[in-house]
Amino acid sequence: MENRKIRVGITHGDVNGVGYEIILKAFENEAMCDLCTPIVYGSPKVATYYRKAIGTDTNFSIITQAKEAADDRLSILNCCDDEVKVEMGQSTPEAGKNALMALERAVSDYKNGLIDVLVTAPINKSNIQSDLFCFPGHTEYFEACLGNGDKALMILLNEHLRVALVTGHIPVRDIAAAITPEALEEKTKLFAKSLKCDFGIEKPRIAVLALNPHAGDEGLIGKEELETITPTIQKLKSQGLLCFGPYAADGFFGSGKYACFDGVMAMYHDQGLAAFKALSMDDGVNFTAGLPIVRTSPDHGTAYDIVGKGIASPQSFRSAIYTAIDIFRNREREKEYSANPLRKLYYDKRDDSDKLKFDAVE
Amino acid sequence: MENRKIRVGITHGDVNGVGYEIILKAFENEAMCDLCTPIVYGSPKVATYYRKAIGTDTNFSIITQAKEAADDRLSILNCCDDEVKVEMGQSTPEAGKNALMALERAVSDYKNGLIDVLVTAPINKSNIQSDLFCFPGHTEYFEACLGNGDKALMILLNEHLRVALVTGHIPVRDIAAAITPEALEEKTKLFAKSLKCDFGIEKPRIAVLALNPHAGDEGLIGKEELETITPTIQKLKSQGLLCFGPYAADGFFGSGKYACFDGVMAMYHDQGLAAFKALSMDDGVNFTAGLPIVRTSPDHGTAYDIVGKGIASPQSFRSAIYTAIDIFRNREREKEYSANPLRKLYYDKRDDSDKLKFDAVE
Repeated sequence: MENRKIRVGITHGDVNGVGYEIILKAFENEAMCDLCTPIVYGSPKVATYYRKAIGTDTNFSIITQAKEAADDRLSILNCCDDEVKVEMGQSTPEAGKNALMALERAVSDYKNGLIDVLVTAPINKSNIQSDLFCFPGHTEYFEACLGNGDKALMILLNEHLRVALVTGHIPVRDIAAAITPEALEEKTKLFAKSLKCDFGIEKPRIAVLALNPHAGDEGLIGKEELETITPTIQKLKSQGLLCFGPYAADGFFGSGKYACFDGVMAMYHDQGLAAFKALSMDDGVNFTAGLPIVRTSPDHGTAYDIVGKGIASPQSFRSAIYTAIDIFRNREREKEYSANPLRKLYYDKRDDSDKLKFDAVE
Repeated sequence: MENRKIRVGITHGDVNGVGYEIILKAFENEAMCDLCTPIVYGSPKVATYYRKAIGTDTNFSIITQAKEAADDRLSILNCCDDEVKVEMGQSTPEAGKNALMALERAVSDYKNGLIDVLVTAPINKSNIQSDLFCFPGHTEYFEACLGNGDKALMILLNEHLRVALVTGHIPVRDIAAAITPEALEEKTKLFAKSLKCDFGIEKPRIAVLALNPHAGDEGLIGKEELETITPTIQKLKSQGLLCFGPYAADGFFGSGKYACFDGVMAMYHDQGLAAFKALSMDDGVNFTAGLPIVRTSPDHGTAYDIVGKGIASPQSFRSAIYTAIDIFRNREREKEYSANPLRKLYYDKRDDSDKLKFDAVE
């Protein structure tokens, strides 16, 4: 396998958020550029502004095209308004517009093979909305413009825990109706596939959480466990997937049972993420699985309340870069290993004598 | 204030769960009986069975009436079937019936002033259902039979965090409709009152969580924040309550922001409890606020999977006893301090000169 440096595209996110602070801090240590070739899609002017504001001495080159990026240093690709105004901690339409410009350029460069993976700094989901961006978040945006029809799956991970969501950025009012056997089956299979190809776990064990409190207490508190979740788990098991549950979310996270599984399938955003973030402190990473592109991000938002104070931690962002690189390499490895498979062998169980059938086709 | 020993009624819960194990382990240390006079409502026979099974040497007296309980030792009040059969880790109708018998006797003794507070070991919510018990849990049962019309509020707490729930044991499908301005106002006021009277916090600061992911992102992901939660917070603030929010649950628990508040008002069960339990490890306590009775319980369930193995931790149960005693004493103190208040003084602000009005009536 080619062990070349991975070209990491980084979008700057909301210029009034902590994006530049975490980017500049993450690359304070020059060893980061030994791991990858980082290309920030954004504004060198804004980067310089934050460089002074937070007092860091991270150096960068200004480029106008991805192919100009040097292998051994941080590059900032100028793809925004030259006159973009920074208003720290404020939500402005201008910031939304410039966040989208960076995303669009990064997507176009990815399509042209100029970057390998994408790490996104936080956007503000309300100021970025426009005719060109009408999605509740990055995940849905990339699903639409880079998915080729594939469905995205949001996975939150740290070293000890991977949590995926059946439903994402939807109101609580709509959750129960969205938990269908089809959605659960699709997302769990996607999760299993991602754990295999993206994380190198050959036979992943997946815990499926319940929808209702106390896993519905045998139908007393909601019927979805009995009618939808348990039958779907049974079906997936019969297809050879190692999935278990449904587990009541509070006890599951409280007892540390999650440590027994390679992945946790949560039914909705806050069920999975409130517990995940409570447990992960500041090294959680958000990974969009299921798409051809490898895209990660830190697990926090724009953090308007602490912008420019120099106190934002780059840890989650740094982990997002490591994760994107790892997953990209895992996918290459998986592709290589599975390129020329041995012919599968089937047992013929029709009578008592087990016979190997070499002629069966899958 | 009279500093007499508090008489703690303890219901044995489900005889096939970890109830007896945590009770016996909690009282292994005899110093526990210096704090309170413990009376277990249950079956001495089953207690003896578990005493052998888990190999503890906790001693107890067998009594038939609460007034027989000695001050300095653990008493077990026989109020169950003599022939009750233990089937460790199994849900049986017999266990449900005996769990209810203990509850009923404890409630009756409480009404007759024979015990001061109540600590309940875990029941199984499905096998206990009958004509006499048709509630999703202890909280609703006590609200009905000891509430005198008052509403109960479920609070989960440890040393660092207190989480209350606007909605409790209801299906996720019904949550959004149950988050009304009235419910939120009522529960937040109850919470504030409990923080004052039960925990001795004169001016509690309460964080109100959002209902939807990302606090609805300004209406993109649900309107409840804009239409219900924020206006209610404003109203409560204008009435002098120190309440803030709405905060997106995942970031709130992930950033440690909860440490800035005396209480956290969560919208529904798993939102508050999954994060709480993830953070509280094994010392969380469930407290039913709002009722005349002080009732606490450990924050775990019957734990059928580990019954009789001797590995159940009594820590949460022990904390439940401490908490019940503390709250009982805080209430007595509050009552004593507020028994003969000074006449309130009102400022007359109608003109520029502040005048004290001694004659105003509240």
